Amino acid sequence: MTDTSAKLTLLGLGAMGSALATAWLAADYDITVWNRTASRAEPLRTLGAQVADTAADAVAANDLVVACLLDDASVRSTLDGVDLTGKDLINLTTGTPGSGRELAACATARGARYVDGGIMAVPPMIGVPDSGAYVFYSGSAAAFEAHRDALAVGAGTKFVGEDPGFAALYDVALLSAMTGMFAGVSHAFALVRKENIDPREFAGLVSGWITAMSGYAHGIAEHLASGDYTTGVTSNLAMMVEGNATMLRTAHEQGVSPELLEPFMRLMRQRVDDGHGDEDTTGVIDLLLSRR
Amino acid sequence: MTDTSAKLTLLGLGAMGSALATAWLAADYDITVWNRTASRAEPLRTLGAQVADTAADAVAANDLVVACLLDDASVRSTLDGVDLTGKDLINLTTGTPGSGRELAACATARGARYVDGGIMAVPPMIGVPDSGAYVFYSGSAAAFEAHRDALAVGAGTKFVGEDPGFAALYDVALLSAMTGMFAGVSHAFALVRKENIDPREFAGLVSGWITAMSGYAHGIAEHLASGDYTTGVTSNLAMMVEGNATMLRTAHEQGVSPELLEPFMRLMRQRVDDGHGDEDTTGVIDLLLSRR
Repeated sequence: MTDTSAKLTLLGLGAMGSALATAWLAADYDITVWNRTASRAEPLRTLGAQVADTAADAVAANDLVVACLLDDASVRSTLDGVDLTGKDLINLTTGTPGSGRELAACATARGARYVDGGIMAVPPMIGVPDSGAYVFYSGSAAAFEAHRDALAVGAGTKFVGEDPGFAALYDVALLSAMTGMFAGVSHAFALVRKENIDPREFAGLVSGWITAMSGYAHGIAEHLASGDYTTGVTSNLAMMVEGNATMLRTAHEQGVSPELLEPFMRLMRQRVDDGHGDEDTTGVIDLLLSRR
Repeated sequence: MTDTSAKLTLLGLGAMGSALATAWLAADYDITVWNRTASRAEPLRTLGAQVADTAADAVAANDLVVACLLDDASVRSTLDGVDLTGKDLINLTTGTPGSGRELAACATARGARYVDGGIMAVPPMIGVPDSGAYVFYSGSAAAFEAHRDALAVGAGTKFVGEDPGFAALYDVALLSAMTGMFAGVSHAFALVRKENIDPREFAGLVSGWITAMSGYAHGIAEHLASGDYTTGVTSNLAMMVEGNATMLRTAHEQGVSPELLEPFMRLMRQRVDDGHGDEDTTGVIDLLLSRR
């Protein structure tokens, strides 16, 4: 299996970096690893990894360099003064779209091709077939294509454009959506917490309902694409605002703070007050973009 | 198909009531309908429904009486002075757990059996095979069992206990979870709104991610059942709070108000500050229940 392309350097051996390294070793890749705290490399040395003493040595060892560090400041400091000429730098470190763009400009100026990555998985999912783990990539399409096979070893790949900020943007957008879902689910469990209701049975209902309603995103997309926020609306904002009152009364009855639901309800109410009661919630997006 | 049990009265012909009536007529049920605004009944008369002039006449016509009215106040006023002796009242009107319990006590005192219902569907899903529509029922198990077939005509049935408040509680809890998900998805679309990103393609990613992460509810259930909020944690609160900073910075970069995400992030931060950084988010539920 090992060929000339099956070689790479990995900087950073936290939980995610170690999981990626293990997946590459299991796929017979020749990898060189480096970590600020050297002891983290020992389990991987046992599995066959080369361990570099310095980040510069690690980068010198291979043309493909993957960084999976604490944050973008760590990427900058780790690569400070290191020769990046001719390197393909794949940065899987979590960051913002803006920091991805800055790192891309910096790496390109130093002679490297840059690809940013946003990992949609937790470490235990890496290298597990059918785990659903994948990584958003954006930046140099040529560098991504050159290393597509290597990048596909631990998780699926989704290339989302040449803008080096897009991988982080997609990553953060999906995590933000998830955070809202987590908030709603937490409120739901709080409502039933003091009742004689089996949380496991309740979880199945919540999970099924969230899945069934996830198509909400497609409705928003159609509205944004057409500019008409009333298309296909089965329960309009005016009706939803009525429903919100029932949700708030129920929270009060059950002794649950409404703080997680109120901000969205306020924006829905504002859209109704602004004359958009016949629409879906899509206009809330416009409000979020107009408040700063 | 028509037998002695395939008869019922339906009070209320809004969008949901009309959809239910149409489903029963399509299944050859002998139904008597009533609506405050009589003209709403005409399309159903054409389809074969009996139309009563008064709510009292409608209730007198059948032992099974289904109410699908505007709100619980409408149920009270509609049934005011109507003889409910020997009736089985199924109240599908949206309400709170408390109002369901009050209506149950009131109906029972007047000689009826009471079942509350919470409809997990929009009207176009009613009577459509495999639409996923279902209704939570709670209250008199005997009355529910007696009419199980009739109630299963337009949508699936889930009986969740003899507490007449539970149908509304489950209903509102799931709608609350959905509201949080809607808020998160709205924030996600706002983040990408000004970029050259196809909203339809983005919607598929968001929907898939929400579905993949909906198992979050099962993790919460395990924590609540065991009382140990650290079991199976792959990304603990301390790490998640770090991730929140990236989400907030990204919102700032993209010009998006963080108001929909901040309340949950504040509660996560409070749990970390209270010494629970090694847990999952489950403890947020305890905070929601302790703030009033």
